[in-house]
Amino acid sequence: MFSITLKDVAARAEVSVSTASRALAGSSLITPETSKKVIQAARELGYRPNVQARALRNAKSNAIGLVVPSLDNPFFAHIAAAIETAANAQGIATIISSSAEDPQRLIASLETLEQRQMDGIIAVPLHGCETTLHRIAKERPLILVDRELDNLPAVVSDPLPGIAAAVAQLREKGHRHIGYLSGPQETSTGRARQEAFIQQTSNLKVSVYQGGFEYQNGYEGMLNLLTKGVTAIIAGDSMMTSGALAACHEAGVKVGEQLALVGFDDNVFLRIQPTPVSVIDQDVQTLGSQAALRLIKAINTKTTPIGLRHPTRYLARSSTDFPPTTPTSQATQPGQAN
Amino acid sequence: MFSITLKDVAARAEVSVSTASRALAGSSLITPETSKKVIQAARELGYRPNVQARALRNAKSNAIGLVVPSLDNPFFAHIAAAIETAANAQGIATIISSSAEDPQRLIASLETLEQRQMDGIIAVPLHGCETTLHRIAKERPLILVDRELDNLPAVVSDPLPGIAAAVAQLREKGHRHIGYLSGPQETSTGRARQEAFIQQTSNLKVSVYQGGFEYQNGYEGMLNLLTKGVTAIIAGDSMMTSGALAACHEAGVKVGEQLALVGFDDNVFLRIQPTPVSVIDQDVQTLGSQAALRLIKAINTKTTPIGLRHPTRYLARSSTDFPPTTPTSQATQPGQAN
Repeated sequence: MFSITLKDVAARAEVSVSTASRALAGSSLITPETSKKVIQAARELGYRPNVQARALRNAKSNAIGLVVPSLDNPFFAHIAAAIETAANAQGIATIISSSAEDPQRLIASLETLEQRQMDGIIAVPLHGCETTLHRIAKERPLILVDRELDNLPAVVSDPLPGIAAAVAQLREKGHRHIGYLSGPQETSTGRARQEAFIQQTSNLKVSVYQGGFEYQNGYEGMLNLLTKGVTAIIAGDSMMTSGALAACHEAGVKVGEQLALVGFDDNVFLRIQPTPVSVIDQDVQTLGSQAALRLIKAINTKTTPIGLRHPTRYLARSSTDFPPTTPTSQATQPGQAN
Repeated sequence: MFSITLKDVAARAEVSVSTASRALAGSSLITPETSKKVIQAARELGYRPNVQARALRNAKSNAIGLVVPSLDNPFFAHIAAAIETAANAQGIATIISSSAEDPQRLIASLETLEQRQMDGIIAVPLHGCETTLHRIAKERPLILVDRELDNLPAVVSDPLPGIAAAVAQLREKGHRHIGYLSGPQETSTGRARQEAFIQQTSNLKVSVYQGGFEYQNGYEGMLNLLTKGVTAIIAGDSMMTSGALAACHEAGVKVGEQLALVGFDDNVFLRIQPTPVSVIDQDVQTLGSQAALRLIKAINTKTTPIGLRHPTRYLARSSTDFPPTTPTSQATQPGQAN
């Protein structure tokens, strides 16, 4: 589709094709005068270097691959936005792919990115993909994001600071029985968050609902925990937070009056509520941009990427700013307490 | 990084390199026996064809470029998810880029995608990019999504059916003064939606707030329209819907009791409210997947993509399911009406 070739540029600048090529690549072997002449000729002709041909010669595509579970999940959309922005600022393109939390799809996506000779790969890992991820990590820089797996370098958040601060506030307000909507224990995030919750709630009564990272788990878990007599509930991820909040609204449980609720991830919809919901925030902007920057650094220095554990923080809002009501009246008749 | 070459495969299969190449490309010039032998040799050696080298030969990258304003906006994240999924199902990768609603960034992104020899490009357009978009559309298939610009092929939604149904319900409930939070009139979506609103509200009093597609416009617009004596408000996009709802919550205006509210786009947070919010839904899944499928069809058939105008629909929920209160009491003392 582009009719202007390097040969045309060389002819107009009255230099050899190899000199023109070196000049456009910024080689120090070419005098500044010659470089200037070639660059001007290229500009006048509207010459566009064939990026793929160049990538092939340099064995560099100037592109990174990213596999997330789904862009329909705002958490991963925000991670992808931060990665794309950080990579783009360095002239690196982002090829995006989704796994739908299915190990077979993740493996297929990774293999496609490999065949496209990505300079490096960022992935949200899944159990069952260990072998593929390790093999790829031997061939080119790879960094995981959000979840850890099998000692591969990963940019993850540390749930402890945020969960500790949330439990401390609930304890200080007088809550003595706290419910927890737990994520799948096959994921590093599910395990680490539950461990942090258990560690912080010594001397308190706790009820744990073993769920998944799905809306439905949060919805059912909320209805289940409300029968246990809890006065406060912490949700272990953003999707379960949505389900838990929907269950409260539908059951007529007044968040911030009858029940203290702590969500996970600072999603805008938790702020736009009659009673804004306190959250454990993961700082997705930092997780995404650091994954990109650490990967690009590894590509440029031909080293292995270095992982990061970034602290969560607690953002207290109205949903936890009240003393607990008596648990029994609330638990058995959620719509009529107070 | 891959040490196995086509030469190795040819040697193991005891055929020439060109025969091996033709066999792996599925050429009909090669006998089934030879093909089988070559494919088996490739599998045994773990041969991975160099996709970029093949792309260069075929002048096809098997990748499409996508430029959206931002993946942080859930509407565009959902569009991107639908495009990536539809393209991936056909073995086509999606390179994603963002414009931050800045024409200069959009042009830079488009030029980068061009240099990377994308087979086709999908873009959410902006004023000021007409020349670049037209030039690209002459060189390779290009389709716009969400917004129209300058008669380029575009997959957009038709706001009329959704807005007509929303106004019809408000009229039927007894509302006589309806407010509208309007988007920027420089965008095709901003104009088309306002036109549809005006067209449908004949014989009704209307108040229009000229905003943008930003949270802050919705917030300020809501506070402004509440002073005009409206009993119902329709928001002209998802970001303004967020701002408008936040303003109601903060001002203590009870949506679904004191004010009827119709949002734009079926974002999950409008469902997870004590009073779920009625919306005009754009069917992002269809917009995204149709943009991808129509672009890919144009690539495969070497034709120009064909645009689509897909109807919006109205999803009525509790926020509009009540008769209006007297406008004056509500407008002047929003927190104390009823």
